[in-house]
Amino acid sequence: MAKLVLIRHGQSEWNEKNLFTGWVDVKLSATGEKEAKRAGELLKEKNVKPDVLYTSKLSRAIQTANIALAEADRLWIPVNRTWRLNERHYGALQGKDKAETLKQFGEEKFNTYRRSFDVPPPPIEASSPYSQKNDERYRDVDPSSLPETESLKLVIERFLPYYQDVISRDLLEGKTVLIAAHGNSLRGLVKHLDNLTAEQVSKLNIPTGIPLVYELDENLSPSKGKYYLDPEGAEAGAAAVASQGQKK
Amino acid sequence: MAKLVLIRHGQSEWNEKNLFTGWVDVKLSATGEKEAKRAGELLKEKNVKPDVLYTSKLSRAIQTANIALAEADRLWIPVNRTWRLNERHYGALQGKDKAETLKQFGEEKFNTYRRSFDVPPPPIEASSPYSQKNDERYRDVDPSSLPETESLKLVIERFLPYYQDVISRDLLEGKTVLIAAHGNSLRGLVKHLDNLTAEQVSKLNIPTGIPLVYELDENLSPSKGKYYLDPEGAEAGAAAVASQGQKK
Repeated sequence: MAKLVLIRHGQSEWNEKNLFTGWVDVKLSATGEKEAKRAGELLKEKNVKPDVLYTSKLSRAIQTANIALAEADRLWIPVNRTWRLNERHYGALQGKDKAETLKQFGEEKFNTYRRSFDVPPPPIEASSPYSQKNDERYRDVDPSSLPETESLKLVIERFLPYYQDVISRDLLEGKTVLIAAHGNSLRGLVKHLDNLTAEQVSKLNIPTGIPLVYELDENLSPSKGKYYLDPEGAEAGAAAVASQGQKK
Repeated sequence: MAKLVLIRHGQSEWNEKNLFTGWVDVKLSATGEKEAKRAGELLKEKNVKPDVLYTSKLSRAIQTANIALAEADRLWIPVNRTWRLNERHYGALQGKDKAETLKQFGEEKFNTYRRSFDVPPPPIEASSPYSQKNDERYRDVDPSSLPETESLKLVIERFLPYYQDVISRDLLEGKTVLIAAHGNSLRGLVKHLDNLTAEQVSKLNIPTGIPLVYELDENLSPSKGKYYLDPEGAEAGAAAVASQGQKK
């Protein structure tokens, strides 16, 4: 039986500043580093032993994995990085202050861009300092595959094939797979695993820094259940994420 | 033209305590973390941009790479881990205090085990708490290939084929390759690159935490030169390593 362990990175330098981040590569804040350490402590305490790691190409997810695995004495496991686990590309919103964006677009559009399933924000201009047009970390990827904006639906469309073709191979071998990623790429995966509707996933809040474990059967279906390694912390964390969504 | 960048990890918790470490998986000390940070600052200052990372399976080398790459904004590069980059296996000396070992074996044997090219210490007992016999990090490796003790010669024999078959592939593509490893695996590589004799390599001291860059030509020969990113610091560091070798 395989285990799939999901960790959403914690606070970044831009979460602190209330800016839309998306693909902009900001680091963890000191709080985010503490959250990652706690994630590693939970892995160790609960005896969850990842055999292999998948991360996005963004520093805040990679740092989270590095800190957690150091804590859990599993730094030595093989590592795979893919842009397909990146956070949702926030298009023209990247680098913008959330309060200002609300003013610019009005409440309805603002909420649509943040929480609708299939409406992406306007695309980012290639000339924006927050565009990844010439970011060398993506130079090994067909440029036509790289987004200039994304809805959650588009995130799922670009991530799910990688999960099914690559990550699933390790799961089918019975490995414990750790994925360190972002709110939206993980929401997309949870939608797939738990077979959620678009409406259900729009209300789903994944807490940061608390490993979520899926016990998968031989069909990679989570029929054996799922649980957070710190259920109480997860509940409080999800509520915190939800209330953050309300803030303007 | 390819670049090969070597970083030797800095102080570990056991260097501090004067114990033989080898394959025992101890973490960096606070000093070792600072050395890794300095290595990353040097990469950034000197505009050396690794495209791909190779590490041993030991935490202290992996931590060094993680800290340095975070500092250099290159956490996103692909990562490969191999036991073939591990420190020399110190056999029965692993986990022992250096002063006690000197008493136990006498000065001549003690110095032979530490610095001879081809005389390994006695093998470690499988029952030793410092044996890696059942260490799961090596479970994907043919057990008959795993050492119970090693000389520097044996380190070279187990590492060089990996360098020639795997790492060289990236170099032949013109990539900048970062290797984060250990005193003896890196001495073995330098012996190969600089075509040193056994006697020359026995006197070679690689400073910790200072990236050593080889500029390789199309035959992967270092005809274009090599240099430390902090030459003065490297000289002082090498002298410190040499004097540490004298200490009893």
